[in-house]
Amino acid sequence: MTQKKKMPGEFQLIDTLTQKWPHHQNNLRQGVGDDCAVVRIGRKDWLITTDMLVESIHFQKKWTSAYLLGRKILSVNLSDIAAMGGTPRYAVIAAAFPQKTKLTFLKDLYRGLHAVAREHNVLLVGGDTNRSPQKMVFNITVFGEVMRGAPLLRSRAKIGDDIYITGPLGRSALGLKMLQKGKRLKKEYIQIHLNPQPKVQIGLQLSRQKINALIDLSDGLLSDLSHILKASGVGADLFWEKIPKPTGLLSLCQRLKISPEQTVLAGGEDYELLFTAPSRDRSRFKKFWHIGKISSKNNGLRVITPQKKLLQLPYLGYNHFSKKP
Amino acid sequence: MTQKKKMPGEFQLIDTLTQKWPHHQNNLRQGVGDDCAVVRIGRKDWLITTDMLVESIHFQKKWTSAYLLGRKILSVNLSDIAAMGGTPRYAVIAAAFPQKTKLTFLKDLYRGLHAVAREHNVLLVGGDTNRSPQKMVFNITVFGEVMRGAPLLRSRAKIGDDIYITGPLGRSALGLKMLQKGKRLKKEYIQIHLNPQPKVQIGLQLSRQKINALIDLSDGLLSDLSHILKASGVGADLFWEKIPKPTGLLSLCQRLKISPEQTVLAGGEDYELLFTAPSRDRSRFKKFWHIGKISSKNNGLRVITPQKKLLQLPYLGYNHFSKKP
Repeated sequence: MTQKKKMPGEFQLIDTLTQKWPHHQNNLRQGVGDDCAVVRIGRKDWLITTDMLVESIHFQKKWTSAYLLGRKILSVNLSDIAAMGGTPRYAVIAAAFPQKTKLTFLKDLYRGLHAVAREHNVLLVGGDTNRSPQKMVFNITVFGEVMRGAPLLRSRAKIGDDIYITGPLGRSALGLKMLQKGKRLKKEYIQIHLNPQPKVQIGLQLSRQKINALIDLSDGLLSDLSHILKASGVGADLFWEKIPKPTGLLSLCQRLKISPEQTVLAGGEDYELLFTAPSRDRSRFKKFWHIGKISSKNNGLRVITPQKKLLQLPYLGYNHFSKKP
Repeated sequence: MTQKKKMPGEFQLIDTLTQKWPHHQNNLRQGVGDDCAVVRIGRKDWLITTDMLVESIHFQKKWTSAYLLGRKILSVNLSDIAAMGGTPRYAVIAAAFPQKTKLTFLKDLYRGLHAVAREHNVLLVGGDTNRSPQKMVFNITVFGEVMRGAPLLRSRAKIGDDIYITGPLGRSALGLKMLQKGKRLKKEYIQIHLNPQPKVQIGLQLSRQKINALIDLSDGLLSDLSHILKASGVGADLFWEKIPKPTGLLSLCQRLKISPEQTVLAGGEDYELLFTAPSRDRSRFKKFWHIGKISSKNNGLRVITPQKKLLQLPYLGYNHFSKKP
C-alpha cells in the first residue's frame, strides 16, 4: 500500500498517523507497514491493498490516454499483490471526476481497467462513482489470496542474504522526465512509465522458492529497500555496477540534465520486484539480477562503486523528482 | 456501495459504465448492483464495499470537525455492511489532502475513524496517504462477513411484502439545510447529519429473521426503495401518514423554505435501514415502522395520502437538494 511515488514527508506522516494501528491481532497477520495487509480467512491468507491516484499529483491527463490511465490505476495495485507473492482475485474501484468529463473518456478508462483485470484474471466486483469539484481521483482496492503462512513480507531479510531485482531500473523515471520536459527521446521508456506491467507471475513463482523478503519497487530502489532494512533490522550493500540500467542511460540523462545515479537509485515507478534470499541458493535465481547483499544494521544502506568507493546518497528515500509529475 | 447522496445523473452513469461487469461468477455471489459485493471464501460469504468522499461534494470542512468527519467516513461504509446483514471486520483507508493541512486536523480525523472502528469492533488494517492539489479526498473499503447464503439483497422483495423502516426520515436533510442556510434551528438534526449512526446491530438482527430484501437509506427513501423495486421487479405503495417524521418537521420546513414531502421522501443520508418481509410475520417487527407494501411492477412506486390521493413525485431519485452540500 505504498504504491506510487510518495511526496517528501509522506512517510513520516504515515508513521505518525498509523503508529497505534494494530499490526497483529486475532486473524490479522500483518497490519499497516507492508505492501498489503494480511488477514486469515479459512485456510488461506488474504491480501488487501488500497491506493488512491489523484490527478496532477500522480498523473497528468495530458500525458496519457484514458485507456492507459485505466490500465495503470489497476496495475499499480496488482504490483502490491505481486509484492507479497499473492494471486489477485477481486477489485473494487471508486472514482470522482468533474462534471465536464466526457463519457467517452470514462468508457475508455474502464476499458483499460477491464483489460488489465482480464489479463490477470481479476474480477471487478463493485464501485462507487462520484463528482469531483476539479480533479479526477481514483481509488482501487484489491484482494488477493496466498497460501496460508506464505505471504512474503518485508521483515524477513537475513544478514548474508543476496539481494535481487527482476529488471532494469530507471526507465520509468526517464520516461516521466521526457514527458515533463516535452522531449520524447525514447518512446519505449515513456510507454513503460504510462503502462507499467505488474510482476504478478514472478511474484507467484518467488512465493514457491525459499526467499526471505520481497517488495515491489515503486518509490525507488533506495527508498523501497530501506523499508525492508527497517522492517528486518538489517543493513545492505549494493554494487552500483551490478544494477541493470536502461540502455542509453548516460546520454539520455545528459540530454535531460538529470543525474544517472539518482535516476536508477531513486527514480521510482519501476514496478520491478526486489527480493532477498540465502546466498547458498544463488543458482536458483540466475535469471534475476544479483545487485547486493544484506549486511548488519550498523552498516546502513551503502552503494559501492567498482572503485570500492561509496556513492553519496543525499536523495535516499524521497527526492524532488516527483514534486511535479 | 451507493452510499452518500448521489448527484443528478450519477446513477445513469454508473449503469452505463458497469453494464458489462460480472454479477455472478465462480465465487462471486453478487457483483455490482447492491450495497456490497459478495464473494464466497471458505464457509462464509464476505462483503466488500468501497466509498469515496470528496471535500465540497460530500462534505464541507467548515461545517464539521475533523473528529466528526473521521467518524462519518467510516460510518457511511459500515452502513453498507449493515444493509446486507453483515458484520464489519476489516477496513482500509486511502486519503489525499493538501500540503497545508494541519497535522492536528489529521490526527483528530484518525481519532474519529478509530473511535467508530472500536465501537463496531472493526480493525483498520492498512492505508494509503497522498497529497492532493486542492481538496481533501477519503476512500474507505470495508470487509464484512455474513453467514453463507445469508446476505440480504435488494433483489428478493416479493409482492405482498410489508415495507418497514428503522427510524424517522428527514432529520439529516433538515440538519444539512440548516448548515447550508446558516440557521442552526435544531442542533440535534445537525448532529445527526454530521455524525450518522450505522445500523449494524439492527442489520445483524434482521439477518436472523425471515426478511426478504434490505437496503440502507442514503440517497433518500424513494431513490433507495426504487433500487429494491428495480432489482426485484416489483412496485410499491407507501402510506404517507405512516412514515415516521422528524419532530417539528412542518415549522422547520417553513422556516427553511423547503418542502416537507421532499425532505422526508428524498432528503437522503438518513442511514436508517429499509426492509421488506412477508405480512404474516408482522408481529415480529413491531418495533419498526410499517410504511407500505410491495405491489406488482405495473403499479410503480406510489405515495398515498390519508385522503387516498397520490403524492406527485417529481423528485423521485435525485433532487436539487444535494447539488451543494
